[in-house]
Amino acid sequence: MPARPGRTPDDHHPALVRRAEEALTQRVVDSFDGCADDRLRTVLTSLVRHLHAFVRDVRLGEEEWGAAIDFLTRCGHITDDERQELILLSDVLGVSMQTITVNDTAEPGATEATVFGPFFVDGAPEVPHGGDISFGASGEPCWVEGTVTDTAGRPVPGARLEVWEADEDGFYDVQYGDGRTAARAHLFTDAEGRYAFWGVTPTPYPIPADGPVGELLAATGRTPMRASHLHFMVTAEGLRRLVTHIFVRGDDHLASDSVFGVKESLVTDFATQPAGSPTPDGREVDGTWTRARFDIVLAPTHREDRP
Amino acid sequence: MPARPGRTPDDHHPALVRRAEEALTQRVVDSFDGCADDRLRTVLTSLVRHLHAFVRDVRLGEEEWGAAIDFLTRCGHITDDERQELILLSDVLGVSMQTITVNDTAEPGATEATVFGPFFVDGAPEVPHGGDISFGASGEPCWVEGTVTDTAGRPVPGARLEVWEADEDGFYDVQYGDGRTAARAHLFTDAEGRYAFWGVTPTPYPIPADGPVGELLAATGRTPMRASHLHFMVTAEGLRRLVTHIFVRGDDHLASDSVFGVKESLVTDFATQPAGSPTPDGREVDGTWTRARFDIVLAPTHREDRP
Repeated sequence: MPARPGRTPDDHHPALVRRAEEALTQRVVDSFDGCADDRLRTVLTSLVRHLHAFVRDVRLGEEEWGAAIDFLTRCGHITDDERQELILLSDVLGVSMQTITVNDTAEPGATEATVFGPFFVDGAPEVPHGGDISFGASGEPCWVEGTVTDTAGRPVPGARLEVWEADEDGFYDVQYGDGRTAARAHLFTDAEGRYAFWGVTPTPYPIPADGPVGELLAATGRTPMRASHLHFMVTAEGLRRLVTHIFVRGDDHLASDSVFGVKESLVTDFATQPAGSPTPDGREVDGTWTRARFDIVLAPTHREDRP
Repeated sequence: MPARPGRTPDDHHPALVRRAEEALTQRVVDSFDGCADDRLRTVLTSLVRHLHAFVRDVRLGEEEWGAAIDFLTRCGHITDDERQELILLSDVLGVSMQTITVNDTAEPGATEATVFGPFFVDGAPEVPHGGDISFGASGEPCWVEGTVTDTAGRPVPGARLEVWEADEDGFYDVQYGDGRTAARAHLFTDAEGRYAFWGVTPTPYPIPADGPVGELLAATGRTPMRASHLHFMVTAEGLRRLVTHIFVRGDDHLASDSVFGVKESLVTDFATQPAGSPTPDGREVDGTWTRARFDIVLAPTHREDRP
């Protein structure tokens, strides 16, 4: 962004200037008086007040405003069915994680949520209990198992788990550009609420950094790297949907995750198993493999969700 | 937007919840510690604090966040070389006008600025003193004249005026879709700082309302109409660039201008002249025409602009 900010309010008649600025904000807020949707009016009023206060607080220059419009335009233009730069932007500004935090108020005992990310794809294939979600994605084999229970400790049979992750080169299947499905699937818990699957051991990777969001990270000296993780979305009748990751304990990027997704409760041991050691399901593995356990506790639905 | 907001902070452990939310904001702010550009760090820190506070204040629901991402994505996708939905969005939220207000601190005696709008095109043709900028655009002929001076009252010869406006149907040439140039031109003040041109009498028109911004206006019960106006951008060596409009006194939309651009000092008489009355330059006009006078006072450049 260019260096020249707007004038400071002290340049001329500061009280008049401040009054004109605040009067404008009030005019915009008043323009929503006819909005029939109370919630929409509340949201827009707060948004307008905060955006205007931001402009005033930093004395935003007109060229800076123009640079922001250009930046958002480029984010919109690079976004397509397989790349969502505006979610990335929300992620790297911590807005996604703040939204999740606001909605994931510490339900005692429930598994914590984290960012959804831009790489989920609806309609991933089903695998059976102990099945392999990698579908040829490269990486060290990884056995993941656990249970799904409610906050009273009762197993949840038939919970649906969507799981997805990057391959060992840090790419999701949608980034291959050839339409393949890999390293994503869905499965269901069994009658005792248990699940298990083979995937690949998560490795760190950069978020797509060749677009406007990458420029922003570079300009601010930030890393695009995400801490190694595996995505879960878990749904079950009568319980709250959980969108989360598990992170690999010991990963270099836990403290500098580019989207602020790491929560201590989600950091998980991925224990390396020596080559040749027996696998849980008797599968033959060449070389080392890892195993991780992630027991998931689903919160009750929001009061607002209940019929 | 869907009705269900996130939980209120009172749902569970309010102090813990608030602390987690604020700690996250601080982590994001801290992530800019390595930013070498002080101004960029200042701007992003303020933006992050305000966006996070907005999310907290309204307890933004995850579905609402998703609706906002979708909205911005659609704004980006509808934007092309001839349509700039993100500027429209900034305009209807008053963010553009707040930026202008912050930068246009009441320089005593200088003409006030207003929104740039999305319809300026660089490279419009030059017309001579008294020339016609309409190039076939429909509308009642309108003679506009005035002077350009500095705040000491000295005429500014050779000032460049870019002028542009909609036709009587409310369309700018770039909306015709056929590449024509109409109702836009540039001209220069003469040795005494005077300018004059023929255009068309401004009429009210809606901002483009068939996209996401139009949906927002409809959902909030707001009008897309802009008060009738004619755009000016005036530049001269050693003086501050002025981007402004003149508005038509008596227009129905002065109090509800969809982009909050109206300032009392810019409301101008467009006096209707009877059919057959003599024109300033002897031009023959069929029917009525109008005349408007707009004397422009340019501020000195910002201190920061000076060498």
